[in-house]
Amino acid sequence: MTSSPLQIALSHHRAWTSKDLAAAMAYVADDVVLDAPAGRLTGIEAYRQFLRPFAEQFLVRAELIAAFGDETTALIMYDTETIPAASAPAAECVTIRAGKIVHNRFVFDRLPFEEFRRRQAAGEAPRLP
Amino acid sequence: MTSSPLQIALSHHRAWTSKDLAAAMAYVADDVVLDAPAGRLTGIEAYRQFLRPFAEQFLVRAELIAAFGDETTALIMYDTETIPAASAPAAECVTIRAGKIVHNRFVFDRLPFEEFRRRQAAGEAPRLP
Repeated sequence: MTSSPLQIALSHHRAWTSKDLAAAMAYVADDVVLDAPAGRLTGIEAYRQFLRPFAEQFLVRAELIAAFGDETTALIMYDTETIPAASAPAAECVTIRAGKIVHNRFVFDRLPFEEFRRRQAAGEAPRLP
Repeated sequence: MTSSPLQIALSHHRAWTSKDLAAAMAYVADDVVLDAPAGRLTGIEAYRQFLRPFAEQFLVRAELIAAFGDETTALIMYDTETIPAASAPAAECVTIRAGKIVHNRFVFDRLPFEEFRRRQAAGEAPRLP
């Protein structure tokens, strides 16, 4: 039995929000295209580098707000508690092919992360692991 | 026949992205709660003031990316072309009661809008209508 796009999106989501980046990346295609707030990233390695700081440095916990899907696509929204922001919600619209994420439109507010970086640069925020 | 939460969310979306703010607000409950990137806003007047600059000043055009719903909730993602940013996608998770939006979790990237405001303040960006 193959998993639905929604099941794959949620498995990916649960893995990275459990800080298991390796398990999360198993759901991502080698030639994935990621449309992130800062622009388009291409390929699994760029996707991993995008996700790593959220999974390994910023994330405290995540909570799913809503999740839907059809035969090709899943759309999820969740809130995260992060070190830069007590509430940093995000939404992802992923397209699935052959059981893997081939495209992700990833929406979140960069502003608290940008402000945190600025405070770090000024020595006013803690260095993260 | 009553409209589904998804139909209501899409009608609201089409109205404000057509710059018809009055029509859009007809789908919003008086005591709506809006969880926006900058924090929680309460009441239809605060919602209108939040939406107005996007609808009346920033928006060039909008394009729906995905839209789903169930008996109580709709989740939509769309891209917008705006004056501050060529691509400013957003996601909204709305809860509907008695045919109106009573809660909206609204996710978008504030950074390009913040940077535009800074350029405006420095006299480097155009004044908007």
